[in-house]
Amino acid sequence: MTRIRLGMVGGGADAFIGGVHRIASRIDDRFELVAGALSSTPEKARDSGAALGLDPDRSYGSFDEMAEAEAAREDGIEAVSIVTPNHVHYPAAKAFLSRGIHVICDKPLTATFEDAEAMEAAVRDSKALFILTHNYTGYPLVRQAREMVANGDLGELRLVQVEYPQDWLTDTLEAEGVKQAEWRTDPARSGAGGAIGDIGTHAFNLASFVTGLKAAELAADLHSFGAGRALDDNAHVMLRYDGGARGMLWCSQVAPGNENGLRLRVYGSKGGLEWAQEVPNELWFTPHGEPTRRLTRMGAGASDAANAVSRIPSGHPEGYLEGFANIYTAAAEAIRGVQGGAAREDVMGLLPDIRAGLDGMAFIRACVASSKGNARWVSL
Amino acid sequence: MTRIRLGMVGGGADAFIGGVHRIASRIDDRFELVAGALSSTPEKARDSGAALGLDPDRSYGSFDEMAEAEAAREDGIEAVSIVTPNHVHYPAAKAFLSRGIHVICDKPLTATFEDAEAMEAAVRDSKALFILTHNYTGYPLVRQAREMVANGDLGELRLVQVEYPQDWLTDTLEAEGVKQAEWRTDPARSGAGGAIGDIGTHAFNLASFVTGLKAAELAADLHSFGAGRALDDNAHVMLRYDGGARGMLWCSQVAPGNENGLRLRVYGSKGGLEWAQEVPNELWFTPHGEPTRRLTRMGAGASDAANAVSRIPSGHPEGYLEGFANIYTAAAEAIRGVQGGAAREDVMGLLPDIRAGLDGMAFIRACVASSKGNARWVSL
Amino acid sequence: MTRIRLGMVGGGADAFIGGVHRIASRIDDRFELVAGALSSTPEKARDSGAALGLDPDRSYGSFDEMAEAEAAREDGIEAVSIVTPNHVHYPAAKAFLSRGIHVICDKPLTATFEDAEAMEAAVRDSKALFILTHNYTGYPLVRQAREMVANGDLGELRLVQVEYPQDWLTDTLEAEGVKQAEWRTDPARSGAGGAIGDIGTHAFNLASFVTGLKAAELAADLHSFGAGRALDDNAHVMLRYDGGARGMLWCSQVAPGNENGLRLRVYGSKGGLEWAQEVPNELWFTPHGEPTRRLTRMGAGASDAANAVSRIPSGHPEGYLEGFANIYTAAAEAIRGVQGGAAREDVMGLLPDIRAGLDGMAFIRACVASSKGNARWVSL
Amino acid sequence: MTRIRLGMVGGGADAFIGGVHRIASRIDDRFELVAGALSSTPEKARDSGAALGLDPDRSYGSFDEMAEAEAAREDGIEAVSIVTPNHVHYPAAKAFLSRGIHVICDKPLTATFEDAEAMEAAVRDSKALFILTHNYTGYPLVRQAREMVANGDLGELRLVQVEYPQDWLTDTLEAEGVKQAEWRTDPARSGAGGAIGDIGTHAFNLASFVTGLKAAELAADLHSFGAGRALDDNAHVMLRYDGGARGMLWCSQVAPGNENGLRLRVYGSKGGLEWAQEVPNELWFTPHGEPTRRLTRMGAGASDAANAVSRIPSGHPEGYLEGFANIYTAAAEAIRGVQGGAAREDVMGLLPDIRAGLDGMAFIRACVASSKGNARWVSL
Repeated sequence: MTRIRLGMVGGGADAFIGGVHRIASRIDDRFELVAGALSSTPEKARDSGAALGLDPDRSYGSFDEMAEAEAAREDGIEAVSIVTPNHVHYPAAKAFLSRGIHVICDKPLTATFEDAEAMEAAVRDSKALFILTHNYTGYPLVRQAREMVANGDLGELRLVQVEYPQDWLTDTLEAEGVKQAEWRTDPARSGAGGAIGDIGTHAFNLASFVTGLKAAELAADLHSFGAGRALDDNAHVMLRYDGGARGMLWCSQVAPGNENGLRLRVYGSKGGLEWAQEVPNELWFTPHGEPTRRLTRMGAGASDAANAVSRIPSGHPEGYLEGFANIYTAAAEAIRGVQGGAAREDVMGLLPDIRAGLDGMAFIRACVASSKGNARWVSL
Repeated sequence: MTRIRLGMVGGGADAFIGGVHRIASRIDDRFELVAGALSSTPEKARDSGAALGLDPDRSYGSFDEMAEAEAAREDGIEAVSIVTPNHVHYPAAKAFLSRGIHVICDKPLTATFEDAEAMEAAVRDSKALFILTHNYTGYPLVRQAREMVANGDLGELRLVQVEYPQDWLTDTLEAEGVKQAEWRTDPARSGAGGAIGDIGTHAFNLASFVTGLKAAELAADLHSFGAGRALDDNAHVMLRYDGGARGMLWCSQVAPGNENGLRLRVYGSKGGLEWAQEVPNELWFTPHGEPTRRLTRMGAGASDAANAVSRIPSGHPEGYLEGFANIYTAAAEAIRGVQGGAAREDVMGLLPDIRAGLDGMAFIRACVASSKGNARWVSL
Repeated sequence: MTRIRLGMVGGGADAFIGGVHRIASRIDDRFELVAGALSSTPEKARDSGAALGLDPDRSYGSFDEMAEAEAAREDGIEAVSIVTPNHVHYPAAKAFLSRGIHVICDKPLTATFEDAEAMEAAVRDSKALFILTHNYTGYPLVRQAREMVANGDLGELRLVQVEYPQDWLTDTLEAEGVKQAEWRTDPARSGAGGAIGDIGTHAFNLASFVTGLKAAELAADLHSFGAGRALDDNAHVMLRYDGGARGMLWCSQVAPGNENGLRLRVYGSKGGLEWAQEVPNELWFTPHGEPTRRLTRMGAGASDAANAVSRIPSGHPEGYLEGFANIYTAAAEAIRGVQGGAAREDVMGLLPDIRAGLDGMAFIRACVASSKGNARWVSL
Repeated sequence: MTRIRLGMVGGGADAFIGGVHRIASRIDDRFELVAGALSSTPEKARDSGAALGLDPDRSYGSFDEMAEAEAAREDGIEAVSIVTPNHVHYPAAKAFLSRGIHVICDKPLTATFEDAEAMEAAVRDSKALFILTHNYTGYPLVRQAREMVANGDLGELRLVQVEYPQDWLTDTLEAEGVKQAEWRTDPARSGAGGAIGDIGTHAFNLASFVTGLKAAELAADLHSFGAGRALDDNAHVMLRYDGGARGMLWCSQVAPGNENGLRLRVYGSKGGLEWAQEVPNELWFTPHGEPTRRLTRMGAGASDAANAVSRIPSGHPEGYLEGFANIYTAAAEAIRGVQGGAAREDVMGLLPDIRAGLDGMAFIRACVASSKGNARWVSL
């Protein structure tokens, strides 16, 4: 399979997630980065392009310019990664989708719900694929957890406990000029959700992905502990799922000692599962009434779903970048699939799509509305 | 110090917690069990007494009989442990308190709030001490956590995450004749709270004990997953504390893979703490911006508050019984204190008292009321 | 069952292990301490006795005095605990054994091999029982590990990895007047082994107890890192067992970060087991080719052998003192057994006996000899 | 920086380590694989090349053919990765080194000591670089551990405990046609060491890398538990280092429940360190007399040496492939360095070189000799 020609919007020098996308795209050798609009500051865009070895002609000052130019080239990009702050997701995605260029977009979907709906329309109107990088679903043992739930290994689901604590906003870094902190605490760039948008959506998505449950309603108590901070930095959420399961979701960016503590526990009438992102190569499974098992990636007890997205033997830890790469590699296969004539819905497989994006936006909207209503129940 | 003469109400042959109280009372050699009304079935009471080596004359058929007879003896019991189902706590305690016999009572305080108020009156009217065995507060590193919070090591408190999952009621054992399951799922004997009363009160008390925070209001979503079960077996609770801290509390008896998973995490503006009951000899402390420390009982970093209730060196695990014994030993010292003329309030120290019991009952009542009101906020 | 009347030699005010023995003897209420020769300093002996509430008449200035006086009393002690430095074990034990008083003795057996042989003779010549407190064999999950090996769950045994690191002698505390450090680093009181005698014997005994293997030969590299320290504070040992299994044993008192890190791993042709003393309520079992199981005390997967020596449910940690108490309680039953006429060999069950003591002494002797011979192989 | 043109010897379809090298070479985008002699079976070589998208003209049937042809091309490979069984390392490396093509070679250096010496000569006679993929030294926290030791954070080193247990050869897979098992248990292809060569050398190298200590002598007890297995599958080694530190090394391929359990512990007069490959993003540090710290990759407490080879924030686990990529990326920089005129010794930095390879071969030779001499001490 030849490599897919990839462009990137955002992801200049001091960005974190752009570099992640680039590595993820390379790990299985399915993409080649050939163009970029790497910063909204043209000069920085060009410098970043040079640093990455891009052909200067294909290092653009804006995503519009890039979309137009690349669409016109015979060897133009086939896909683009959008790794900007949230408010740019929609206009950038639209520029490429409308030209038939496949979009791989960071989460949450957009900054506003209006943009999210417009994004949905843009996806509907395009023949290109839209893939959202809810990357935690790419971890092999998350795939296995999903498969086990689907197989009925837990029986009827009863409880979902999901949490995502961090500590990096314990102090008000946004007041100290830290770029990452600035835009993530700025409603104009992040949207209505702070922690709930940045990491709460990951937690919500992960729980949905693994359990297959659809959340019916939620009650949320959002709060901002950082002085003068406009967006929530901590969220407590109670959930009720269709079918009767219940859940709790906690996300925080002010919990000292927690680095990136995404953790999911699911319990049913016949068993329980536990997985933590920081130790992603193990999955704890308890068939009720039996000893807890430590299932390992590629180890005894690993399932087909997990092995299919693993590269190296058990005991050789794969991490965040490999999980992220699983999204990219599946995206590559989906792109080659539609290019070969398959229907969009037939190639997406487990890839997070526009639906997952809209679910995340609905989650943010419901959390904000609930919290404004003193944690009243809000339907999803 | 001579041993305190102790009686026991409840705790016959197949009870779990009676044996725990007896061992706890013996560990530091401060009590001698000399009398008992060990079962509500007279025959079983006498058999159990014999098995424990009680003088047959002091193995009674009822707590009333015991209270009267022992009060009349010169060598009568000085204190009594009440380890019955919840609905017996108040009448039993009253029988002894009214005769000046000190009471050590299992939690929750009573089955009903009315009984709780009557208990408070009975304590007020007596000169005897009333001690509630919120035993988890006896663990050395729980003491240290409390001391560290009080010392300001966490800065201003922001978040409380406390959970207490178990799995023993995943199946409906109460329908299979399991005694422990029968009374704990029976409103007549347990009161209005199921899991929330049995273990939720422990979690709530532990959080209060460590943080010193007073809960202002809560929103609770109680549920019963066991078919036909009258009381909750799972509870999701959001908390707001005086002063602005927020919390979540989860307790469950239907979470497969969890044995006795009481765990507390507390976060403030300057640091975080984490402690788990199943690995009680370590306490994790993160001063914000520094590496997490593993503090161990009696190890480097252990505080005076922890060392004061430790018996053996670091690396030699003390467990549940030793933590429980710390309550008993403090009770013994308090009893000798009042016997020596000290005021009740001066001897109680960190011992859980009638106030803690009422707080627990208020917690249960608020949870039940909130849940009935679709998880509306209820003040405490 | 009435309590056994117990005396104690050693274990005065500032001793560590004496207090452990006393608590262990009380936990299951099978002993009552009624006499003591608690210190070799008569005044300290009497003060310590008073602090423990002993009848002043039964607080003796020496073990000889105690043995003679107690043997003459109708209500004299039935058993004695010897918790002195090693060099006193033999003369003290002999004084009681020769009078038919049962002996519970701390390890290692004696300071010298000559004393050990004399001890064996003293035991042979007495009708009383001799029990050595290799207390780690009392942990429920150690019992289970032994049972699983015996049941063939690991297949044919191949490997034993046992280690016991501590860090308390990293600095030369013996030069700073720390009593525990003084006698344990003094050949006159401890014998030929330092760490190898104090904790290496525990590790060796634990491995033998669990595997049932008999060590055939060993090669040891002992070393003393503490400046001017006469006895080893670190030992590296390679082992060969009868039947072809091989092992490594490491013990150290100079490994910073290790409190009391006794840990055993055993591997066979069909599976592996791992247990660590600091987290004693879990046992890790891997049937080869299957996921690792976390077996818990009294949990799903706990065996009869473990449950028989457990007091409280799973998730309620039992610790060092409870494991120690299992030795005492079994000792009580053995004592009542021989008092009732049973043969000594029929009542000992899993209790560590004079044989275990001699094996430990042979281990020390072999280690010292091997190390002096530049780690040459020495038969056991 | 343009990508380095890379060739590969070995690493065809069903090989494990070839894929690892390819991913590692791509992660930081410093290499492009353009040629290969991927199998000793010409047809398989070509098929594997096609599967990887190699130009068919540059998919060779043998390393000799590749070396000759690529050396003649203007755009020929600049470097080659040798990922064959051990006995091919030397002849393949020589073919490229003699033509000035840089060599990245898997460990152990060669199958025989004679080949190792010839390899050393070939390196000496070439201007090209020789890099050995002792990949575990690429982990960020291994770099930090090395830096901390060098900084004196542990004081004077006393003890090294290193182990590398696996379980994949518990059964005799070599008799069941498993390729990996076949050549690794075959002296003709692996050399004189089995487990000791395959993984023992990693453990030995890791200990040397972190501590900076030079091993003076060792005593080894090698054994083969697999029926009919010609090479060791388990090794027990005692070590003495220059300067007085002592160590133990255990490696095994027959320890059920261990996947890839490389673990290093180092202790000195002032502190201790512990690191485990399966959880590579944390490093445990105990300054003697203080609580143990959990240092995390890119977290508070991470050092410059660790951060320099990290890509993503703390809490986002990097794994085996990223550690391996750190070797490749440093190799790329070294290659560009010498191409730019720098001296070989000036560009190698922390990269494992021919010296590390010879040390590993000397370790294997000493272990085998010692074990044949009944674990006598052998100098290194």
